[in-house]
Amino acid sequence: MRSDVGAAGRNGSIASVMPLVRAGFAAYEKTMFSQDIAHLAQQIVATASERGLMLATAESCTGGLVSAAITAIPGSSAVLDRGFVTYSNEAKAQMLGVSLESLSVHGAVSQAVAVAMAEGAVAHSRASVSVSVTGVAGPGGGSVDKPVGLVHFAASGPQGVVHRVERFGDLGRDDIRQASVRVALELLADRLA
Amino acid sequence: MRSDVGAAGRNGSIASVMPLVRAGFAAYEKTMFSQDIAHLAQQIVATASERGLMLATAESCTGGLVSAAITAIPGSSAVLDRGFVTYSNEAKAQMLGVSLESLSVHGAVSQAVAVAMAEGAVAHSRASVSVSVTGVAGPGGGSVDKPVGLVHFAASGPQGVVHRVERFGDLGRDDIRQASVRVALELLADRLA
Repeated sequence: MRSDVGAAGRNGSIASVMPLVRAGFAAYEKTMFSQDIAHLAQQIVATASERGLMLATAESCTGGLVSAAITAIPGSSAVLDRGFVTYSNEAKAQMLGVSLESLSVHGAVSQAVAVAMAEGAVAHSRASVSVSVTGVAGPGGGSVDKPVGLVHFAASGPQGVVHRVERFGDLGRDDIRQASVRVALELLADRLA
Repeated sequence: MRSDVGAAGRNGSIASVMPLVRAGFAAYEKTMFSQDIAHLAQQIVATASERGLMLATAESCTGGLVSAAITAIPGSSAVLDRGFVTYSNEAKAQMLGVSLESLSVHGAVSQAVAVAMAEGAVAHSRASVSVSVTGVAGPGGGSVDKPVGLVHFAASGPQGVVHRVERFGDLGRDDIRQASVRVALELLADRLA
């Protein structure tokens, strides 16, 4: 195989490109999250550290990816107090104090529940800034009113609560979750600004 | 560029390999987690569904990656009740009932705390099977006794609690976290077997 190297260098064969491919995969694996997500997370950890603010996350459809993105950054232990992965309605009620009435009237994927999750994350932790995510990641669980790709976000901080809703469409479960992590971090960064 | 295709097919040029590279990256991005982690998570969701068992996670150094890997699988909402991302000692005590004495005597990265986290996850949820992770992901925070890469795991289920300790060495923060997700899922699968 070694005898191929010279020829590979000249005509750009598979042998010549494989080290680049491997390096690319290694770099990708290294960050795990896309560069823009890693960059946002880095900014959040730096800003929260500077301002001495503790953070908490409250996640449903992202299932822990938002806290995972934040804790990928060295030094995040100084600013992330905790994360609530409230996948079931019972978890949303018990861990965050979301009212069963709100879950029943508005449904888990709603502005009301997203806001209650964000506020509950602050109320049930030492954090003063939080972000919440609740959505339909699919492939099942969609309806006419609440299709796959519908995701509600809220963030709570000293300046109050903000809400955002996205309709990503049926991009596939992983892409919806990753797009949701990006928006959640943007909202968290906004509350820290 | 199209005219290159024939030649590329014969001599394996960069042009011929690039579609494969792109497809590989796309597939990698699609799963986000490595194939072995995705496979383990799939098995766990399938087995828990079949047996009607609810799951909970309790994570420190992995920061939500274990619950994120499980919830990457469609249908996981039927089996994952909740996840506790207990990054601070206060979170470990308040969310999981880990004793402050244990945290002080043994330290957060210890067998005693890993076991208390796994047991606390079952006690503070509707789940009957849980897994916990607590370790030193680095780059800071290591000591002679507890170097970067030391990670304690525990899993609790109807057959009792198991503990496992790994010394991954200083592989880098992301690799230590991903290696920890793999072991955590193995331990969870063991408790479901």
